[in-house]
Amino acid sequence: MEKKDRVLTGITCTGEPHIGNYVGAIRPGIEASNDNSKESFFFMADLHALIKCQSPKTVYNSSLAIAATWLALGINTDNSVFYRQSDVPEISELCWILNCVAAKGLLNRAHAYKAAVDANLESNNDPDAAITMGIYSYPVLMSADIIMFNANKVPVGKDQIQHVEMARDIAGRFNHIYEELFVLPEVSIDSSTPILNGLDGRKMSKSYNNTIPIFLGEKKLRKTINKIKTNLLEPGEPKDPDSSTVFQIWQAFATPDQTAEMRQKFENGIAWGEAKAELFELINGILKEPRMRYQEIVENPEGIELALKSGAEKARDLSAPLLEKVKKAVGISPFKKV
Amino acid sequence: MEKKDRVLTGITCTGEPHIGNYVGAIRPGIEASNDNSKESFFFMADLHALIKCQSPKTVYNSSLAIAATWLALGINTDNSVFYRQSDVPEISELCWILNCVAAKGLLNRAHAYKAAVDANLESNNDPDAAITMGIYSYPVLMSADIIMFNANKVPVGKDQIQHVEMARDIAGRFNHIYEELFVLPEVSIDSSTPILNGLDGRKMSKSYNNTIPIFLGEKKLRKTINKIKTNLLEPGEPKDPDSSTVFQIWQAFATPDQTAEMRQKFENGIAWGEAKAELFELINGILKEPRMRYQEIVENPEGIELALKSGAEKARDLSAPLLEKVKKAVGISPFKKV
Repeated sequence: MEKKDRVLTGITCTGEPHIGNYVGAIRPGIEASNDNSKESFFFMADLHALIKCQSPKTVYNSSLAIAATWLALGINTDNSVFYRQSDVPEISELCWILNCVAAKGLLNRAHAYKAAVDANLESNNDPDAAITMGIYSYPVLMSADIIMFNANKVPVGKDQIQHVEMARDIAGRFNHIYEELFVLPEVSIDSSTPILNGLDGRKMSKSYNNTIPIFLGEKKLRKTINKIKTNLLEPGEPKDPDSSTVFQIWQAFATPDQTAEMRQKFENGIAWGEAKAELFELINGILKEPRMRYQEIVENPEGIELALKSGAEKARDLSAPLLEKVKKAVGISPFKKV
Repeated sequence: MEKKDRVLTGITCTGEPHIGNYVGAIRPGIEASNDNSKESFFFMADLHALIKCQSPKTVYNSSLAIAATWLALGINTDNSVFYRQSDVPEISELCWILNCVAAKGLLNRAHAYKAAVDANLESNNDPDAAITMGIYSYPVLMSADIIMFNANKVPVGKDQIQHVEMARDIAGRFNHIYEELFVLPEVSIDSSTPILNGLDGRKMSKSYNNTIPIFLGEKKLRKTINKIKTNLLEPGEPKDPDSSTVFQIWQAFATPDQTAEMRQKFENGIAWGEAKAELFELINGILKEPRMRYQEIVENPEGIELALKSGAEKARDLSAPLLEKVKKAVGISPFKKV
């Protein structure tokens, strides 16, 4: 029997999910959840959220919003494992065990940590000023997330490639020292998955506060789309689609035909206001129905909880036996007569 | 109602328990377990063992030996909580959450880590060469061990004082950022608790390979005691008791009267061979019966397992509700209608 690919996707619960998450992670995830040739894992990364966010309200609300978003957009939970990271204690337990095989030097090289150190040095601070052990150890927890389920494919953006490589390194070290228990994960980059820019033209990201949340109401959605930064070209002047955030987002939601049409309109000098109005219509058309479902789902949080709890059970059916093996391999097992 | 002191003691499972552990941790622990004015927690620190020891056999055998030793020496498990660290997943879960409030700069100052860096620098290595995240993060796990049970008294040797201070710091940070959930632990140093030297005169420690295991058979015990390093003074020449390991160990096992007598014998020039023979008789007399119990206990590992499992249940009756509170405080809780 050929083994199915195991694909794992987590979203950090530090804000409202935005259309960058939608096209980059959620939409392909939902497709995968309906693909019988794959086993898909989706989780609310609430333990990761604690690294960046010390507001309990934000973590709670964001977890709820992200879970409801997956459900509203039609994730197939029968053919996937959909869970809250913190509902699977085996992940934290594995995280400690991985600490004991992970070289500190490996973590010193993590981009996010190095960037934080550089920022401190530039402002003449202690290199580790305001850096927590959470920021520093983050790749170890991410390794645990991945190898706990022996996920072999991890769809990530460029900024996360290094973390998957670290997970691969740490899993390999464990296998080498103890026993071949872990699959070595691979980055899976689908070049057709768009990475969206945000309102200000930088990468759309919660940390830049430049996002378009997925389920904004119609009015707010229109208003936010109108805020996308453009250049000063007048109506009638030809515009370059490939350097335009408006066009980039259009392309991420449109069919190939619609994209070709819009490209033509840019060349014909469509007014920015008009292009944005069309973008609003396109996105709103696609998200209108899910938005209504989202409202219903959010009004019944106990229903979301049930879905997550049943997902956690499925997850733990896999994580608990693997953790037992891991513990046994390192010398931790129930005492028995030999 | 006045709150009882909560006293917590863990022994790392990386070797056979030795008489330094006995007089320094186990004997006072067993006394505490029979003291109704205290709540005592004793655990096999198997997750800590993984930091120092990548031999599964050693970790397993050592855990078994340490658990059996506590039981053979008469720990009162009715009046204490006696468990295996890894049987309480809440400890690993809390460890991650504490990572997110612990300053990396704090960990940079840990003595054990700094010593490892210094050794690397001296041999012209990369400062972090061969240092794992386990070594580096060790004080965070130890903080979780302590504050998971709101232990307020932690009896430790001098080398561990800094770790308890770090636990205090991390608990205080959590309380400050989120909610006052943790008791700030205090070091408890009983100056009457002896710290033994080993066969070579350095501190008795598994890492120096200079220990006298508690339950050596009689022959081996006599042989090992004979190996204690002494000076070259002949029989009849007066000897300084206070610089002698033989006398120091004698004192740790003897009554005050016996100690005074032996002091006199040293002044009278007792031969080293004779002093060692008397030391053997003293220790053997005290450990003879427990040694027989130990043999019985070790032959029935399932019985040890039962004791530990029932201890883990008691531990988790405390850790699980506190972890729920901790999670809620940071924003992780079941979704509910508001």
